[in-house]
Amino acid sequence: MPTTDSATLELAIELIRRRSVTPDDAGCQALMMSRLAPLGFRGESLRFGETDNLWARRGSDGPVLAFAGHTDVVPPGPEQNWTHPPFDPVVRDGYLYGRGAADMKGSLAAFVTACERFVRNHPGHRGSIALLITSDEEGPAQDGTVKVVETLEARNEKIDWCLIGEPSSSHEVGDVIKNGRRGSLHGYLTVHGVQGHVAYPHLAENPVHRVAPALDALAREFWDNGNDFFPPTTFQITRVEAGTGSNIIPGECLVHFNFRYCTENTAESLEERVVAILDRFDLKYDLQWHLSGRPFLTDRGALVSATQDAIRTVTGRETQLSTSGGTSDGRFIAPTGAQVVELGPVNATIHKIDECVKVDDLETLSRIYEQILVELLA
Amino acid sequence: MPTTDSATLELAIELIRRRSVTPDDAGCQALMMSRLAPLGFRGESLRFGETDNLWARRGSDGPVLAFAGHTDVVPPGPEQNWTHPPFDPVVRDGYLYGRGAADMKGSLAAFVTACERFVRNHPGHRGSIALLITSDEEGPAQDGTVKVVETLEARNEKIDWCLIGEPSSSHEVGDVIKNGRRGSLHGYLTVHGVQGHVAYPHLAENPVHRVAPALDALAREFWDNGNDFFPPTTFQITRVEAGTGSNIIPGECLVHFNFRYCTENTAESLEERVVAILDRFDLKYDLQWHLSGRPFLTDRGALVSATQDAIRTVTGRETQLSTSGGTSDGRFIAPTGAQVVELGPVNATIHKIDECVKVDDLETLSRIYEQILVELLA
Repeated sequence: MPTTDSATLELAIELIRRRSVTPDDAGCQALMMSRLAPLGFRGESLRFGETDNLWARRGSDGPVLAFAGHTDVVPPGPEQNWTHPPFDPVVRDGYLYGRGAADMKGSLAAFVTACERFVRNHPGHRGSIALLITSDEEGPAQDGTVKVVETLEARNEKIDWCLIGEPSSSHEVGDVIKNGRRGSLHGYLTVHGVQGHVAYPHLAENPVHRVAPALDALAREFWDNGNDFFPPTTFQITRVEAGTGSNIIPGECLVHFNFRYCTENTAESLEERVVAILDRFDLKYDLQWHLSGRPFLTDRGALVSATQDAIRTVTGRETQLSTSGGTSDGRFIAPTGAQVVELGPVNATIHKIDECVKVDDLETLSRIYEQILVELLA
Repeated sequence: MPTTDSATLELAIELIRRRSVTPDDAGCQALMMSRLAPLGFRGESLRFGETDNLWARRGSDGPVLAFAGHTDVVPPGPEQNWTHPPFDPVVRDGYLYGRGAADMKGSLAAFVTACERFVRNHPGHRGSIALLITSDEEGPAQDGTVKVVETLEARNEKIDWCLIGEPSSSHEVGDVIKNGRRGSLHGYLTVHGVQGHVAYPHLAENPVHRVAPALDALAREFWDNGNDFFPPTTFQITRVEAGTGSNIIPGECLVHFNFRYCTENTAESLEERVVAILDRFDLKYDLQWHLSGRPFLTDRGALVSATQDAIRTVTGRETQLSTSGGTSDGRFIAPTGAQVVELGPVNATIHKIDECVKVDDLETLSRIYEQILVELLA
């Protein structure tokens, strides 16, 4: 069994001590590179805007197995609410506490220590090992993975298998891995009316009255049934706002909404269907869209099998495939044709006060990552 | 014909120069009283909270004809947008410009000059003449007319006829008088849901989705058809607000709405009907009510007849009775049993930049008020 005296724990602690709130990397990538360079990794710093990115690779041939992740963390919130300071990690009762412990500095540490053992045991491995590390996954995600992927594509550098260290596990490390994600599509609707005094409604036009039945129709719409890999598409209104004063009919009503959608629809089909519904209600409106990420799926293949086998070998667990939950940087990598799987620690405390990870899970995760390397590149 | 050299114009200018933005009276009532005292009016200053009120009366017998009005004005807005400074009135092209010119310092001046001429000609008139003047009609209206009325009721002092100087006219002075107003009832609805991440709607409950069909039902409801005296009851949503973040299902949705209602409904009947509609939609909600004013009506009687006759005598116009528009302090006076009529200048510019009143209309208004005194108390 792993002990609390593990190399992975030590590196995780060093990473958490670096206050790398998005988009600040705070030296985390340099620390990782200082461990990878002696193993023969060539590191490339790719800075876009305020975002530091690292592309590190050992080997020049294919196939390429890339570990992907981010050094940035979400803000800690009120630090006085933490039992221990969020950037001064401590181990207590078998758990490591600190911002980023689970999302995802523990995974980054496990990437590095897995590579260290694997390279020591297999110095002449086939293909290439790579790390794709960004510092803006928790932020706008515009100058991070998406830009690195563009850079790689421009020089025809391909990733065959991508293992993302996002905290995928539910109760025990490895019990769930993500082999895809739904798409995320935002809509921004402005319904125009005519402002006026409530005592003279015939001189005004109330946009809230106009839009109410349209919102009801959108909320009731059956979008699809999902499929074998994805849950059904969901629609949620996230904001509605109108109001000028207590005796004033508002002139406008803003409505924001979001789709989490599966591969039974496309962003384009959903946009068309929304417009068709709105147009049944005789509204004057503007509608803008932001496609946050298309859905992606790695059905079966070498990476899924290797990950399942590695989890079984190290933990004895049968893992469950899932495409639920939010988006991840996998949305930028999957379109290149790479197989993408997410595997990381238990996600119960991510983004919360007193974020933590089980110390034993860090070493277990490192062993699983190492075993995936063995299965695919030994 | 009246000339621009009129006593009413001069007093209106003096009143406008006093910057009496709600609830500040700025000495207007003292100025009026300095003119009324020599006529034999006994003045009583009634200050409640920050609001100055004046009750002035000439005579101790009934019937009592009270002129009612307010010295406070709405804020001028950006003064640089005015052609002339709002509190430095000027006459140009036959119009008097300044904040309060139409609403309602012109009427106050006309009250005073009408009393001056009437008392001079009829020093031994029957009954009593009174003025009920407040300084918070444009504000919360909690320490003004309502409190004076309570004071008068407590000592059993009755108003028989109340002529309010609110700007009732549409195109020419006296073309429209108000013989009633609809009620105004505010509703404050909070619909409770369960906040959550948009990617996990099964763990949340979206209050906007829940309330949308209820709002549609309320907006479509037929409340009543109005009657001979009132237009139909209207319902308007004045505010709707929900939203916590771009990927968050809101936990609550606030909805504010307002009824302008006629005597075919009551506040109580409307409240019951709203609850019955909401309860069809399986909502968890809180609902609070604020009754701003019950509807009131002075159908026919001595005051309406005297006002119609006076307008005809002075201007040759046939006046039109109306109960449309917003509320007025009449809502506080009518419940005492007084007949209430509103007659004042043309309301086209009230509350606006460059508020103004036709100079000739000031003297016409004074002559009409004098003629009403003649008809009722000579």
